[in-house]
Amino acid sequence: MVESIAVIGCGAAGATAALQARKFNRTVEISIFNTEQYSQYSRCGLPYTISGKVGTFGDLVLMPPDNWSALKIDANLGVTVTDIDHKAKELTHSDGKLNYDALIFATGAENADPPIKGLDKKRVYGLRTLDDAKALAEEAEKAKTAVIIGGGLVGMEAAEAFHERGLEVTVVEFLPHILLAMVDPDMAAIVEEHCEEHGLKILNNTAAQEIKGKDAPETVVVQNRESNEVSEIPADFVVVATGVRPVTGLAEKTGVEIGTTRGIKTNDKMLTNLDQVYACGDCAEHFEFITRKPMAGGLGTVAVRQARVAGINAAGGDVTFPGIVGAKVTKLFGLEIASTGFTEEMANRFEIPIVKGSMKGSTKPPYYKGGKELKLKTFYNKETGKLVGGQLVGEEDAAMRLNVLTLGIQQDINAVDLFDFENCYAPAICDTWDPLVSSADAARKRLKM
Amino acid sequence: MVESIAVIGCGAAGATAALQARKFNRTVEISIFNTEQYSQYSRCGLPYTISGKVGTFGDLVLMPPDNWSALKIDANLGVTVTDIDHKAKELTHSDGKLNYDALIFATGAENADPPIKGLDKKRVYGLRTLDDAKALAEEAEKAKTAVIIGGGLVGMEAAEAFHERGLEVTVVEFLPHILLAMVDPDMAAIVEEHCEEHGLKILNNTAAQEIKGKDAPETVVVQNRESNEVSEIPADFVVVATGVRPVTGLAEKTGVEIGTTRGIKTNDKMLTNLDQVYACGDCAEHFEFITRKPMAGGLGTVAVRQARVAGINAAGGDVTFPGIVGAKVTKLFGLEIASTGFTEEMANRFEIPIVKGSMKGSTKPPYYKGGKELKLKTFYNKETGKLVGGQLVGEEDAAMRLNVLTLGIQQDINAVDLFDFENCYAPAICDTWDPLVSSADAARKRLKM
Repeated sequence: MVESIAVIGCGAAGATAALQARKFNRTVEISIFNTEQYSQYSRCGLPYTISGKVGTFGDLVLMPPDNWSALKIDANLGVTVTDIDHKAKELTHSDGKLNYDALIFATGAENADPPIKGLDKKRVYGLRTLDDAKALAEEAEKAKTAVIIGGGLVGMEAAEAFHERGLEVTVVEFLPHILLAMVDPDMAAIVEEHCEEHGLKILNNTAAQEIKGKDAPETVVVQNRESNEVSEIPADFVVVATGVRPVTGLAEKTGVEIGTTRGIKTNDKMLTNLDQVYACGDCAEHFEFITRKPMAGGLGTVAVRQARVAGINAAGGDVTFPGIVGAKVTKLFGLEIASTGFTEEMANRFEIPIVKGSMKGSTKPPYYKGGKELKLKTFYNKETGKLVGGQLVGEEDAAMRLNVLTLGIQQDINAVDLFDFENCYAPAICDTWDPLVSSADAARKRLKM
Repeated sequence: MVESIAVIGCGAAGATAALQARKFNRTVEISIFNTEQYSQYSRCGLPYTISGKVGTFGDLVLMPPDNWSALKIDANLGVTVTDIDHKAKELTHSDGKLNYDALIFATGAENADPPIKGLDKKRVYGLRTLDDAKALAEEAEKAKTAVIIGGGLVGMEAAEAFHERGLEVTVVEFLPHILLAMVDPDMAAIVEEHCEEHGLKILNNTAAQEIKGKDAPETVVVQNRESNEVSEIPADFVVVATGVRPVTGLAEKTGVEIGTTRGIKTNDKMLTNLDQVYACGDCAEHFEFITRKPMAGGLGTVAVRQARVAGINAAGGDVTFPGIVGAKVTKLFGLEIASTGFTEEMANRFEIPIVKGSMKGSTKPPYYKGGKELKLKTFYNKETGKLVGGQLVGEEDAAMRLNVLTLGIQQDINAVDLFDFENCYAPAICDTWDPLVSSADAARKRLKM
């Protein structure tokens, strides 16, 4: 019988785990520890505090501290767990010691700094914490130029936010295209063109080498990786958004096994190799849904779903996390970008041979005014015909269409199943054959199904 | 070996059947007959020619007559098939006779006139044909008041269109609410309130008794079915949109079996009781997807999918139509209304005991500005926990969310599967737990799953 649970971390994962443990078990003692002084806030919402699409920083706080006491959860904010003796089931934190029966690691991830000179200067930021966002909101008030190093989701959302605040923004991306962890190069190129039309500068295939300036940035020295040409871009401040790595130091010290993706290895109960020790969210490694191979999460949706499972199981329940499909969406300058399952590069990496259905369609019937162009592709396992991924880019209804593909992957559908899908139809909404269905039709023929 | 196919009807079903037969079989002779002088046009687009959301009537024509000859399909427009001798495999039409090997009925549906006095006056219209829409577009230029009898999909879309053209519009609905063939009363009430806020007058539970006036309408006499109060509503013209019935006269005469829903009975190959005689679209009866009980289509999506199957099979192929889920959507004054599978009333009629998951959510996370309220419910079979229907009403992303439910029904998912759905998430798009998932969670608990 579990009498006490300690949760380390109070991001989306930690807070959800604690909450779900409480919902499942009204009597178990629950303590939650957070190094940050804040209670759970939306990390994904941070870029929008800069643009003003989120009103105040307070709006982002999803779990005000008072709520914890109402739930009889002991929330230790601004308190760091420094050591764990799992044999004695005792943890040491900056304010004292605590005994626990079950432990949940929800330590999240941290920025992985790239090898660039001058990262230690003032006015060089990450965008991971509420304090980062507060500092950046101040920069948006006074600065005129910004360089964003890294054109992934966080980098691009930050770039959009500063551009909307009137700054001159340059994104420096090391790889040949932005957003390659999410979409294929051809889709990324559409996004780049759209963002550039809206005034953003994007330097692909470009290495940031040095942040120059006295105390604070004045320019960023970059080198084009094809031409080797070096140039300097003016920057009043710099945001480094080159990706994150799981925070696992404490877990490793405790004897918890780390997986090949550098996250804490978990099974379908979100249990680690140690009895009654769970992990969830960005610090955890789980399974890619289709191949069951190890995969890091790094997504809010995955974090809260894993956390629910970890929380309930730690509190004495028995539920299962089904694996990570990896649905990812964002919106940049009004353009929705959506991806689920495998990209072409991922399919290759996970050794799944694929057949594609590509389409350039419209969100509405051709006769109805105001439909938006939709570029999409769906991917199928060449051997089985099963749906393994899909991507959509368009100014409306791209993200919501992605949901159909994600559920399809989770339900193990093939190209014929998607072709048989009875999409909704009305002139003001969508045509009789949804572009998704047409893409399945193209693939089905190629697969001879 | 089929050498010739005759298709009767050139709406969405007939045109699609002919086209798909040709794609499948390059040599078979194909003749298509249409009583209307027009080639395939979008019937669902007709209301939008009135409001101007469809530019011209020509825009609605999806298959210009020239295309038929390019496809080597003999399109007989303005030609009515009057008799069929199926033993001799010969049909008689207004211009002569034709022999066929396979026959496809795509005769559609026609307005079912209600028992109202004065329907024979001038300026009393249906809204089913391009000619209807042309006359109504002229009315929108000159008339000031309109009465729409029937608050179903067509009636409501017409009402919106005339209201947008500046007319004073009253909808007279016999049943307690509008749209009851599509949504439950509580959802219909939300739509009514929204439409009334935009200036539409809706009289529920009201019987239109008589269209009064000399040659043309002056008023419509209506009686409230609860209070029995009689009143007169000014009307320069009247649109009767009280539903349709399948056109089956010719089929019956040919010996084709008619089903309990009054449509032509078909199997999963879209074959009727007669060898090499197929039916598809609004004239056909098929199966409700979940119970496999007889159901009429009446939907464009269903029509084209059935027609593809009929066309390919008539041309010598072997494909299957999976049954009708019945996804229905529309948009009225910016509000999306979406329904799939069973409504409560239908579940009752089809003898499926249900458990509900109801939600009032938002399309976006609470901290992100501009999210719209979303009211939704999902229905599950009380005994099996399987998803059997769902409805959504909201100013954005209601219809696209419906697609997830429809695919879910087609894939036989239960409440836990929908709860495990990894919806996409980003602040600008949707929260971490989509309202659909939350509704499944509520139902799952009720179902003790």
